[in-house]
Amino acid sequence: MTVVKWNVRAGAYYDSVVLMQLQRGLLGLPGVLDAGVVMATPANRDLLAANNLLPNSISASPDDLLIVVKADTEKSALDAIDKVDELLTRRKSATVSEDFRPRSLSAAVKQLPGANWVLISVPGRYAAGVAREALELDKHVFLYSDNVSLEDEIALKKTARKKGLLVMGPDCGTAIINGVGLGFANRVRRGAIGVVGASGTGTQAVTSHIHELGGGISHAIGTGGRDLKSEVGAITAHQALDLLAHDPETKVIVLVSKPPSPDVATQLISAAQGTGKPVVIYFIGYPLPARKIGNLHFAISLREAAEVAVRELEDWELETRDAKSPISSLYLRGLFSGGTLAYETMVGLQAILSPLYSNSPISNIQALSDPLHSRAHTIIDLGDEFFMVGRLHPMIDNDLRIRRIKQEAADPEVGMILFDVVLGEGSHVDPVRELAPVIKEIREQRIGELEFVTIVIGTDDDPQNLQLQIEQLKEVGTIMFRSVTEAVEYISLRFGHHASNEYPPVNLEQLKQPLAAINVGLESFYESLITQDAEAVHVEWRPPAGGNEKLAALLAKMKSKKEK
Amino acid sequence: MTVVKWNVRAGAYYDSVVLMQLQRGLLGLPGVLDAGVVMATPANRDLLAANNLLPNSISASPDDLLIVVKADTEKSALDAIDKVDELLTRRKSATVSEDFRPRSLSAAVKQLPGANWVLISVPGRYAAGVAREALELDKHVFLYSDNVSLEDEIALKKTARKKGLLVMGPDCGTAIINGVGLGFANRVRRGAIGVVGASGTGTQAVTSHIHELGGGISHAIGTGGRDLKSEVGAITAHQALDLLAHDPETKVIVLVSKPPSPDVATQLISAAQGTGKPVVIYFIGYPLPARKIGNLHFAISLREAAEVAVRELEDWELETRDAKSPISSLYLRGLFSGGTLAYETMVGLQAILSPLYSNSPISNIQALSDPLHSRAHTIIDLGDEFFMVGRLHPMIDNDLRIRRIKQEAADPEVGMILFDVVLGEGSHVDPVRELAPVIKEIREQRIGELEFVTIVIGTDDDPQNLQLQIEQLKEVGTIMFRSVTEAVEYISLRFGHHASNEYPPVNLEQLKQPLAAINVGLESFYESLITQDAEAVHVEWRPPAGGNEKLAALLAKMKSKKEK
Repeated sequence: MTVVKWNVRAGAYYDSVVLMQLQRGLLGLPGVLDAGVVMATPANRDLLAANNLLPNSISASPDDLLIVVKADTEKSALDAIDKVDELLTRRKSATVSEDFRPRSLSAAVKQLPGANWVLISVPGRYAAGVAREALELDKHVFLYSDNVSLEDEIALKKTARKKGLLVMGPDCGTAIINGVGLGFANRVRRGAIGVVGASGTGTQAVTSHIHELGGGISHAIGTGGRDLKSEVGAITAHQALDLLAHDPETKVIVLVSKPPSPDVATQLISAAQGTGKPVVIYFIGYPLPARKIGNLHFAISLREAAEVAVRELEDWELETRDAKSPISSLYLRGLFSGGTLAYETMVGLQAILSPLYSNSPISNIQALSDPLHSRAHTIIDLGDEFFMVGRLHPMIDNDLRIRRIKQEAADPEVGMILFDVVLGEGSHVDPVRELAPVIKEIREQRIGELEFVTIVIGTDDDPQNLQLQIEQLKEVGTIMFRSVTEAVEYISLRFGHHASNEYPPVNLEQLKQPLAAINVGLESFYESLITQDAEAVHVEWRPPAGGNEKLAALLAKMKSKKEK
Repeated sequence: MTVVKWNVRAGAYYDSVVLMQLQRGLLGLPGVLDAGVVMATPANRDLLAANNLLPNSISASPDDLLIVVKADTEKSALDAIDKVDELLTRRKSATVSEDFRPRSLSAAVKQLPGANWVLISVPGRYAAGVAREALELDKHVFLYSDNVSLEDEIALKKTARKKGLLVMGPDCGTAIINGVGLGFANRVRRGAIGVVGASGTGTQAVTSHIHELGGGISHAIGTGGRDLKSEVGAITAHQALDLLAHDPETKVIVLVSKPPSPDVATQLISAAQGTGKPVVIYFIGYPLPARKIGNLHFAISLREAAEVAVRELEDWELETRDAKSPISSLYLRGLFSGGTLAYETMVGLQAILSPLYSNSPISNIQALSDPLHSRAHTIIDLGDEFFMVGRLHPMIDNDLRIRRIKQEAADPEVGMILFDVVLGEGSHVDPVRELAPVIKEIREQRIGELEFVTIVIGTDDDPQNLQLQIEQLKEVGTIMFRSVTEAVEYISLRFGHHASNEYPPVNLEQLKQPLAAINVGLESFYESLITQDAEAVHVEWRPPAGGNEKLAALLAKMKSKKEK
């Protein structure tokens, strides 16, 4: 028969490492079969229950420490519980012998005035406070802590951006700055590939793969997993891209993230275009707009992102811009007879053009309420059921499309009209003979302003005479492609624009100084910095008011009054 | 000043070609500036309005034909309206001179008894009836018509499947059977690439690209755009895959569709695995699970799908199966310390494993309600915030994962446990030393039954000694990969299974006979068949009861009573 005994320590704060060591200490005692040492949150209680370690009768709040021992006899269990204080004291005395350690961030800064980074891994509810303090002291922040509110994240990042500082996180697991790994980081060669990572193990995998393939890392900048949400607007990712764009040692950039919000994705891709350097983008689980659009490369796996980056490094050169000036202030209107061609075009362009509407949308926000009237950038499938009642398909009858081309051309906000010409059996015998005069007439009225781009699908055996169709299109100044892929790349380059950075850039020279950091939280992160020959100071952090939140709130109030 | 005049013909049925020709005829008359000839549906009225062709006062129902003329004078407008009957008659007399044509499907079959196909392009509301009749006559159906109800589609396809017949459509634009294009189809070389296309212009683009690249098409089978919805369950696509799998002339298969329902996608991918032939899958806008999983290749564009197919044709060989028997009746449990690794694994496996759950789901239907208990196939991110309050990250502390590994191993439905080992700064100094004994112990109890698969992320410079970690894992019989990509491919092959076909297969020998077809609807499709040297008969179709739906319903009722 087994016996379970427990001990609750109300409102006590303990470092996670201390808790792990206490649990291991208990497991080493005679007769102890299992043990749990956790903060009594609902999740942790569930975990104890799953391991048959939760007695029914325990009352403890999420701020309480819960110690549970399962032993073979009642005596063993009680003896183990009695040892808890001894085990905790033993842990303390082990650290007492270490050097004098500051107990606050400000004291730590006095000890290491050259510190340019603060690493924070205290429990989530205290983390924003420490980060605020670090920003006030003009330090970059690596914020490992999770369970930080979205509001705090946004406020911290906005403050940092104004000062040209980075807040990597919250929930940022990994970064490599100037050759030194922060948090969880693999030891990799230094080199010319910069990484912007909204995902910790994503960055670890990509940097490890790059190393394995013979490449190296300039900087790997973490952003935290929520940075690419609409609410945050990828503040850190934009700063990081800008930084790596200006870093002469970075030749290729990798941008890796779980799927971002579509609006954020479009802006980031635009900023990536603006760097002029090869950027490998891997938005995990996001449909690829293309393999390559100008200087942008899209990957489908962490492994492939690394492979493309290393390959691009080998034939790196600064992107030379298209001579034509972009038409970014105007809109695209696509008028398709082929539904799938329209859809594939949407998949490609949704990464680049925003807002983008369609009567054949990929996501609901793209739905065009009135198929007869375009808005902003619009892709219309003219073969959609809506248009088809008692009417021939637009591959046979050009009337509907010609009317719509005229309608779009009359809109001064339209800079490009895209359409497909699908040849073959069943289709109109000479579609371009009907379309070309319309294009010619419009171009004579709006020359230079309005581009016509077409995708011709067909073979040299088709009844319409492929070459003749193409020649007629070229004659009226239409830009012609033979696949959606090529047309999407062209359009993306024509509409691509460079997000201008209105905020102070992150100081590149300061970032390139040898890394010196103050660590607040997990001691193992401090030890890792020392091992990597970085200068570092560990703060012997304790929560304000010993973890008593009411008292802490009172103290904070008093402090803020005093400052006023 | 311009004048608009109109004419309404209540409940009259006219072929779309006739309507187009009438409109063109009107436009050619003196003084006529514009004209519209349409069925008075809301969509068409909107279109007229957009072209300033809709007078306010018109009352007409969707079944009425609406003829509108805009002219420079009232006289010109009225003269044009007066010519409507003459223009309609002129059209009729042009066809009168043609050969005797059957007016019903059954009459057409008598005229062309060898017909194996019926092409249907009558208006949507009549199409299902014609298709039913064709199936009763044991003919394959190419159903071009759109605006057919989902219920009709399901019923037609179930009937066809039972008889080993194909219903391609509704809204199927394109097919190439035995070298003959049906509907809209490009003229392409015959060859060894078979296509299953749930999208018309998708099939046109892929077959055209293949032709351009020097390849050729065995058959291109259309399914209609809704075939891959859950409700229809890809009945036609499954038949088509099965057919092409058994066709010795087809060496490589391309499967192209707009994004299918996830459950349908998983089943189709499984069936594609079962063909043993290289299958290039392009679900437009669907995130790629991988570039390649066994005999499956995933493409990101129509152009790329063609390229991969042609390339695979060059080094084609029948897939030799893994010697190990698959573990398809058991479940996978993935226990990750790296959130991104878990997520990338989900992206890869969601195409293959169903149902698949996670505490870090990609779509809501994958959400695991209780992160502490797995269901079916499950991927857990143990570094998720839920687990992290007052607890060290699983990259530092193995306790949580070891407990969970034991919990999963105790479940007899589990056939594979997948986990990651992430090395580097900040992580546990020797994670495998703690994990390996647990695996060893479990394997001693459940040897042969339970596979352990691991993804090791790290570099040869990492503090943990990469080689030693790998050796310890191999020693306890763990199957080891260095990237998510490789692990996903392995797991997909282990769990891959072949959907067994419980329905009569489509008769391949009959399909390979020279194509002979009966055309009901658009005459241009008949003409196209003749041009391609196929035997064909055109039915001079008119809607039942002259398009009077009430009368038609009455007639149908009488007919069904008589048959009873």
